[in-house]
Amino acid sequence: MSSRPSIPKGTRDFSTEEMLRREFIFNTIKEVFRLYGYQPIETPAMENLTTLLGKYGEEGDRLIFRILNSGDFLAGIEQEVLINRENSKLLSQLGEKGLRYDLTVPFARYVVQHRDEIVFPFKRYQIQPVWRADRPQKGRYREFFQCDVDVIGSDSLLNEYELIKIIDEIFTRFKISALIRINNRKILSGIAWYIGEPDRITDITVAIDKLEKIGIEAVSEELRTKGISGDAVKKLQPVILLKGDTGKKLAELEELLIQSETGRRGVNELRELFNYINNSDLNSRVDLDLTLARGLNYYTGAIIEVMAEDANIGSICGGGRYDNLAGVFGLEGVSGVGVSFGADRIYDVLNQLGMFENIRGTSTQVLLLNFGNSETSYSLRILDILRKLDISSEIYPDAVKLKKQMSYADAKKIPYIIIAGDEEIKKNEVTLKTMSTGEQKKIPLMELKSVVLSVIKQKS
Amino acid sequence: MSSRPSIPKGTRDFSTEEMLRREFIFNTIKEVFRLYGYQPIETPAMENLTTLLGKYGEEGDRLIFRILNSGDFLAGIEQEVLINRENSKLLSQLGEKGLRYDLTVPFARYVVQHRDEIVFPFKRYQIQPVWRADRPQKGRYREFFQCDVDVIGSDSLLNEYELIKIIDEIFTRFKISALIRINNRKILSGIAWYIGEPDRITDITVAIDKLEKIGIEAVSEELRTKGISGDAVKKLQPVILLKGDTGKKLAELEELLIQSETGRRGVNELRELFNYINNSDLNSRVDLDLTLARGLNYYTGAIIEVMAEDANIGSICGGGRYDNLAGVFGLEGVSGVGVSFGADRIYDVLNQLGMFENIRGTSTQVLLLNFGNSETSYSLRILDILRKLDISSEIYPDAVKLKKQMSYADAKKIPYIIIAGDEEIKKNEVTLKTMSTGEQKKIPLMELKSVVLSVIKQKS
Repeated sequence: MSSRPSIPKGTRDFSTEEMLRREFIFNTIKEVFRLYGYQPIETPAMENLTTLLGKYGEEGDRLIFRILNSGDFLAGIEQEVLINRENSKLLSQLGEKGLRYDLTVPFARYVVQHRDEIVFPFKRYQIQPVWRADRPQKGRYREFFQCDVDVIGSDSLLNEYELIKIIDEIFTRFKISALIRINNRKILSGIAWYIGEPDRITDITVAIDKLEKIGIEAVSEELRTKGISGDAVKKLQPVILLKGDTGKKLAELEELLIQSETGRRGVNELRELFNYINNSDLNSRVDLDLTLARGLNYYTGAIIEVMAEDANIGSICGGGRYDNLAGVFGLEGVSGVGVSFGADRIYDVLNQLGMFENIRGTSTQVLLLNFGNSETSYSLRILDILRKLDISSEIYPDAVKLKKQMSYADAKKIPYIIIAGDEEIKKNEVTLKTMSTGEQKKIPLMELKSVVLSVIKQKS
Repeated sequence: MSSRPSIPKGTRDFSTEEMLRREFIFNTIKEVFRLYGYQPIETPAMENLTTLLGKYGEEGDRLIFRILNSGDFLAGIEQEVLINRENSKLLSQLGEKGLRYDLTVPFARYVVQHRDEIVFPFKRYQIQPVWRADRPQKGRYREFFQCDVDVIGSDSLLNEYELIKIIDEIFTRFKISALIRINNRKILSGIAWYIGEPDRITDITVAIDKLEKIGIEAVSEELRTKGISGDAVKKLQPVILLKGDTGKKLAELEELLIQSETGRRGVNELRELFNYINNSDLNSRVDLDLTLARGLNYYTGAIIEVMAEDANIGSICGGGRYDNLAGVFGLEGVSGVGVSFGADRIYDVLNQLGMFENIRGTSTQVLLLNFGNSETSYSLRILDILRKLDISSEIYPDAVKLKKQMSYADAKKIPYIIIAGDEEIKKNEVTLKTMSTGEQKKIPLMELKSVVLSVIKQKS
């Protein structure tokens, strides 16, 4: 075989260095989730297609990786279907399982399936890979990890506030300056209703979103092109141009939306949420942003999105409230709210900011050089001592040239080497070499423990 | 929708309680791997079928979950193939990706693909799920986790010894009495050669394996039925009946296999390995077991299998040396050795032994009761204090009846409740209730920090 093996496009291997960095990310996120009382669950990679299909729109359905039925996969498929190449019929008969597309739908399925064992409000987090048959491109993969945190079974706005706190705490720990943008679907509904175009929320928010780039005239033009009436566009202008701090914006919105019950509720929700936020010590900037829409299809209240202020990389976290997600699985009236952290983008931001510099490519602290059989048992005793002190250590397995052994330590960035040759054995000592300085020091075996504790353990 | 949603057969959801127990298992294993200088990598769930097929035998190939090509999955498939239902041709054209079946083959693929970046000897561990379209049954799942630890690029027997040490350390930490059985493929080859049936290793070991159950006469009969010559069976008898300690067994084997170079090398390898083992302080029992064969197809040297002495549950860890695994991907002459820990069986053993009793179903230490809006900001301040002290805590999100809030704490086994109603707020204090005793205690806000540190933090 001449060509090297490879992996499917859009997927990745993670080297040790990447693994240690990713572990740092996942562990930080996990610690904060737990600090806030959220608990882990996991769901299988494969879900029944009946669970997945119809939840992500037509485009989403197409992006689900389907598993071919095992065994006689053509059994039960009519000859006619094959001859006529009836794609969609065939598709539904060739497989009944798919890889999960996100963690939200499996979570909704989990809640309904296990509703009798679950204590509500159910605060769960879930950190697992998801798969999408998307066209791979820079920063977009076919297998990637999501870190989701949701609470279901409570419509208190304290939940939204706690999620904002979680976001703030996580990005503070990452030393990433976060801009948290907040909107509310009810306000968007109110605005659409107010201008007389209740069904055009998406077009309206997409247009508003372009304000900074293209100006108010072009936005208005775009809306008219899309068939929004001139009257509606006119009524929308003061909404688009709302300025000032959150309190001022909310006061003006309240006036504009006075006739819309939904709109007023949206204003009240945001007022309560910003009241919590303003009384809190957040490091992140929090903005009310009426242009924020994000997958409107299932959000019913708060909409949340987070950007890194110092990196132009798009959203690094997002989510919102959904009043009826479990409804599709037969459990009505259970409101939930949650956000999802994008581990890959956070990785890229941390990398850009140089936050990974202290994460070495190994956890090994000490390498013992291998001098061959007669010295081995002495070395193995030393290894036992080191490991009992919880020092990650290894012996070079083969008694090859010392130069080769040293370059192994170099390449793996192992900070200490212990030399225990026949000279050391005779004197019942070892030589400890610090790789960064090149300094070598003889240590009597009796003192090894205390030297290790004072030198190596301190720095690990 | 009347029926509850479900998951594919053979797959599992993991509740919080199960997650915390599984985390304990994975973390323990990971810590020991790292202590011995092994480093993490991860590979994608999907591999190209060219990577997977032909590595696990015909039966294994059938058990690989295949991913249907996305987009127009029938493109390029000839009409004739469809009409004639040419299963195997169709199968190869409908998909080019599969879910990984184990971690060994992806590891071999990884090593070859990344050989220029890897520092050899390469000591890696990998803890990820694998998928097999096996018939699900008690204790056998279609998605399960493997914990693999391998070193590749060194044929030193120190590697085998270190793996035995890792096994001993992990099961010691789990408080599981482990029986480590060791064999060597070279000895099995030598025996087969010695009795004049070099190609019948599998039949011979299967028969030997039944000795304790059915006795020497029945074993000999079975061998003859399988076409092993009477002479061969006769020559085999003294091998089967080898008794005594490892040293005695090895001495006798050496004599029997004196004419077989491979056999003698096997004896020497085992002698060196047992020399290390006998000079070491292991908690586990280690046995030379000539009946141990385990997936002979790719093992070339040591064969290792671990059983729990106090649970009748089969193998909980196993592996061996393979001299040419990377060869199938074009990298020859790189010897490796490794073992795989079965997380699910270890879970079952720990469960049987009652080792999980200290793992609660939540990490939340403190629940703040919710008395409604006017008290909320005081409670949020207290939450801030607790979390700054790294105490996992939450406020009940809704101001519902206290009985309901209390039963939430009960169900989640949260050990402490903090009550901060208007009475407490007036006096600038809180009430701390210990759930296990029912004891309530007023604590001035000023003293909260020190009480938390001395009471709650101590026990968490």
